[in-house]
Amino acid sequence: MESRNISNQVHETPLSVFLWGGKEKFDARKQLLEVLTTNPVFDKRPVTVPSLARKDAWLRAVSQARELITIKHREKWSHAQFREAVSMLDYFLPVQPQFRIFLSNLERQMSDEQKAIWIPKAERFGILGSYAQTELGHGSNVRGLETTATFDRATDEFVINSPTLSSTKYWIGATGIWATHSIVVARLIIDGKEYGNHLFLTQLRGLETHELMPGVEIYELGPKVFQGMVGVDNGAMQFHNVRVPRSQMLARNAQVLRGGAYVPPKNTKHSYSSMVTVRAIMAEITGYELLKAVSVAYHYTTFRKQFWWKGEKEETTVFDYASVKYRLLPLLAQGTALVLVGQRIKRSFDEYSEVFLKTGDTSQLEDLHLQTVGAKVYSTHITSQGVETCRIACGGHGYSALSGFGKMYAHTVNSVTYEGDNYVISQQVPRAILKHYNANTEHTVPSLSYLRFLRQPSNATKLAVSTESDWFRPENQGWILEQRLATLVKSHMEASEAGKDTSFTVHELTMAHCDLVYWAEFWEVIRAAAGCEFIEQLTALVQVFSLFILQSAHKDIYAPHALSEQQRRTLTSAYDKAIENLASHSRTIIEAYGFTDFEMDSALARPDMSPYEALFKGAKDSEMNNMREVWPLIVDATKMWARLDSEKAKL
Amino acid sequence: MESRNISNQVHETPLSVFLWGGKEKFDARKQLLEVLTTNPVFDKRPVTVPSLARKDAWLRAVSQARELITIKHREKWSHAQFREAVSMLDYFLPVQPQFRIFLSNLERQMSDEQKAIWIPKAERFGILGSYAQTELGHGSNVRGLETTATFDRATDEFVINSPTLSSTKYWIGATGIWATHSIVVARLIIDGKEYGNHLFLTQLRGLETHELMPGVEIYELGPKVFQGMVGVDNGAMQFHNVRVPRSQMLARNAQVLRGGAYVPPKNTKHSYSSMVTVRAIMAEITGYELLKAVSVAYHYTTFRKQFWWKGEKEETTVFDYASVKYRLLPLLAQGTALVLVGQRIKRSFDEYSEVFLKTGDTSQLEDLHLQTVGAKVYSTHITSQGVETCRIACGGHGYSALSGFGKMYAHTVNSVTYEGDNYVISQQVPRAILKHYNANTEHTVPSLSYLRFLRQPSNATKLAVSTESDWFRPENQGWILEQRLATLVKSHMEASEAGKDTSFTVHELTMAHCDLVYWAEFWEVIRAAAGCEFIEQLTALVQVFSLFILQSAHKDIYAPHALSEQQRRTLTSAYDKAIENLASHSRTIIEAYGFTDFEMDSALARPDMSPYEALFKGAKDSEMNNMREVWPLIVDATKMWARLDSEKAKL
Repeated sequence: MESRNISNQVHETPLSVFLWGGKEKFDARKQLLEVLTTNPVFDKRPVTVPSLARKDAWLRAVSQARELITIKHREKWSHAQFREAVSMLDYFLPVQPQFRIFLSNLERQMSDEQKAIWIPKAERFGILGSYAQTELGHGSNVRGLETTATFDRATDEFVINSPTLSSTKYWIGATGIWATHSIVVARLIIDGKEYGNHLFLTQLRGLETHELMPGVEIYELGPKVFQGMVGVDNGAMQFHNVRVPRSQMLARNAQVLRGGAYVPPKNTKHSYSSMVTVRAIMAEITGYELLKAVSVAYHYTTFRKQFWWKGEKEETTVFDYASVKYRLLPLLAQGTALVLVGQRIKRSFDEYSEVFLKTGDTSQLEDLHLQTVGAKVYSTHITSQGVETCRIACGGHGYSALSGFGKMYAHTVNSVTYEGDNYVISQQVPRAILKHYNANTEHTVPSLSYLRFLRQPSNATKLAVSTESDWFRPENQGWILEQRLATLVKSHMEASEAGKDTSFTVHELTMAHCDLVYWAEFWEVIRAAAGCEFIEQLTALVQVFSLFILQSAHKDIYAPHALSEQQRRTLTSAYDKAIENLASHSRTIIEAYGFTDFEMDSALARPDMSPYEALFKGAKDSEMNNMREVWPLIVDATKMWARLDSEKAKL
Repeated sequence: MESRNISNQVHETPLSVFLWGGKEKFDARKQLLEVLTTNPVFDKRPVTVPSLARKDAWLRAVSQARELITIKHREKWSHAQFREAVSMLDYFLPVQPQFRIFLSNLERQMSDEQKAIWIPKAERFGILGSYAQTELGHGSNVRGLETTATFDRATDEFVINSPTLSSTKYWIGATGIWATHSIVVARLIIDGKEYGNHLFLTQLRGLETHELMPGVEIYELGPKVFQGMVGVDNGAMQFHNVRVPRSQMLARNAQVLRGGAYVPPKNTKHSYSSMVTVRAIMAEITGYELLKAVSVAYHYTTFRKQFWWKGEKEETTVFDYASVKYRLLPLLAQGTALVLVGQRIKRSFDEYSEVFLKTGDTSQLEDLHLQTVGAKVYSTHITSQGVETCRIACGGHGYSALSGFGKMYAHTVNSVTYEGDNYVISQQVPRAILKHYNANTEHTVPSLSYLRFLRQPSNATKLAVSTESDWFRPENQGWILEQRLATLVKSHMEASEAGKDTSFTVHELTMAHCDLVYWAEFWEVIRAAAGCEFIEQLTALVQVFSLFILQSAHKDIYAPHALSEQQRRTLTSAYDKAIENLASHSRTIIEAYGFTDFEMDSALARPDMSPYEALFKGAKDSEMNNMREVWPLIVDATKMWARLDSEKAKL
């Protein structure tokens, strides 16, 4: 077995600092890992979570949540550090919503007076929070929510109700058992008049008893597919005349005054800034989930050997087969694109937020919204499919839960649905494209450059590529991506004009749009990194990323602009070259990401054991060994037919 | 809520009998369902298996296995009926290998004398069997297996050994706890000379005690990803000088005589007939797994409403959106193609087997091998991806384990790996194509018709399609499929000649080959069914199946044969028409498949409750409700920071 550089230590190299988003983030991850890996409460090895009853897995998450609360106090962690610690703990914890969605909404949506009261409570875990938006019958269409909050002038309270079965709050994280308070989204009604959805901080359980408050009915909603998120107690919740003081409607924007006068919000754009926030965070972090899976698959497939190549005595390392390399290396390049470009998107968002907090300027919000919608669809789609590709590329042993791939898939594939179903939110990308096209404003958005092909089809001269090396030039790559998009956008416009339902085709269009965006931004990263000592590795990555997309992108271009047979041929051989080149750098890159044993948690990638040793140890440690109590039943099973025969004979 | 035709009764219509493979198979399924649904041991509703500890889920499988053994005796079930009953029980059972692979190998590989002794024991469950081929370090490459069986002349026994860690028998179904005997694949050694792999019936555990036999070391190997196959105790097994009498080497083909003389097998083809058998069965049944998922998704998406269409007061049924219809209906068509064509493949295999048993003629085996390899790759790839597509098309509630999709995916996606990894066995299809091309024998295999485009490129005139309706004509559809294959095969030949590793691209080539095979055979089915009362539904299915493939297939064709812009346009609108037409028949088709509540086992498709009622009931029934024992810990968590502060203050 070749030596493999896996450990619980993070090793610093210029490339690793770069790939992890700079020194500050690199060090933060390092410190976090030091704290978690030295604390026995978080030790992953002695427990095989997929073997546990769901109840026991959740109780384990509760003890980890309690430990994290203590650590946050001791280490003076920021909320962001706490959030990151939670996300390193595999199965999520009931404290997951506390900062990610509970406190962040209090901060954004409460008046200053409200904040003064509630933020300290939430920060100090004096109240345990959740966010109750989704209903049994209503997800993406927020305007369809049915829960009502009716103002009662006499008591100066809102009365929260679930008028129908379909209005049951559903999927509400950390609410089945854990939360004491929830931010409930409900339709405000004053004197019979509807004012749309508003947020109400609602107490669910008594702080001393944890008994449900009067009128609150809650159930934990059962297991998730693939043993997903066993650490979170998602809840189903109904309200029966639950009373909330007027002071607990979140009042930063709209307000209800004493006596029932309604003060409408000044800034309506504010309502989607929380979605933009979450999606900007997703854009930055989702790619690492893919890279973690790629790392496990890389470690395993560079260990495993199978079949002989002609004339060889030893079996061949499976990573060296095209069938493995051509699945894993494009994912390594895509994962890298997702994180490097995601970091740029997150930076734009942070800059916007800073300006907004100082000046109230929201002029960039719409563009950021478009960017983050695209990034969400693109990164979650590639990552969830990619994680399964990694698992399957590992063959049979990928099907063992000890490989760790099961939980990786369970915890990434739901992201194509939450924070906006990918098909539903994909509609926003072509909508924005058409808006700019019709308003003649595409020059304000660099990623819409391709619309010029639509305005002046004559611009679309044939592609002047003839040799393999021509394909490595960004201008030729860009031509294909722009020409494809122009083709797709044109079809989309025609379909829209003809009144067709485009809700299916927009997904492909959004993916193609993001291909171009990520491609252009990845090359920007390369240009900015010119002269760095790791520019060779980055270039190998960007070329595989680009040529991988081109393998299929060019097929969408109509004749007469379609590639000639010769161009297709050279494109294929350019891609083969790019793969070979990246293969030669792959070890350096995987080591620079340097996912630790704690993060990968896979028998296929242990620092102290080969995959075979780790799998065999996993079998030795199985809780189902030595189940002597069942042996008599099995012995009896071998005698049943004889007994049945003799019983029959007696009749 | 519209009335939905879901029940535990099977309803007979001409279409349903046809889709289930004829009256005999239809009735067999009906009878099986009657037995299982009226027996409380198999009742699925009171238990939420994904909530259980793995141990408890397995113990439940043991009690179901015992019950099935009794029923087989009482109902005089055939082995095939028993196998089918097991496959209806969701999480598999430890008796799964008994007939599927244990007894079937004894029958095929034992001498008549051996059979007389062992078959009755196995049939009567007097011994509980498994099949031990795969090793920790060796899967697809059977010639790489390391376990040895060394002949000991003195005692007339074989001595089985696991010489290395990587030789540990691994993934062996029903062996971790259950089996008493296993057919062990090991390299035969006589007097230091190797004779390759042979099969040895090896006793693992004492029949009265269930204690491991001397020298046998076995562990249960831990959980599978996605809670897959919790009913099967897969084992890791090592042998340390385990002695097997000479009479227990399976001796139908090769034999070892008293004294150690080796009699080689007469018929070497025999060695892959067991793979052909299993793959022929897979070809027939895999599609139903996809259709079950499509049925659940259909029932749910025709119930669920979301968003308003302009001017409408009520929200729109989500099935009516293109984003849902264009995901589900192609899968309905593909699933149907898989079962109808799969039935034809299985019939060819059965005919071959009959002839072979009478005459020993194996002349058709090679073609069958090619067909079943293709069918295995094609059906498992489409089915596993399709099941996930169905789940994701159901949005958030698809992520609830109560939807039933989790176990469907867990139990279909492993099929892309077992019985030959899809990438590895895909190599056999182009190998056969090239063999026929080089030998000029493609006329003997109808599915290789397209090779004429390679021999005489001038045959490939441009496609004469101009209108939408032209696309519904099989000859035009066939032109695209053949032309694409010719293009891909040509690339493959060039790559092979250039010495390139084609192990990645062969997968795409095999899928394209099967597109053509299934397309041609599906049209054969249509022709044979001309005049049937359900021909309209079948035609709607074959058109969506064909035009769905064409959506991408044509893109692989090089200029100058590539489609013109106008042809692409009419192809798209022809596909839109085909989808609309199938949508209008979809209810009839889904009801003809008529999967019962017992088979679907999904809160999204109950006969007596709407999906919302069933999901809410699932929440009410959660075992994690009322966990009062954990409440004090949660209350304490809300006081921890205050306590830590005061402790700090004291210091």
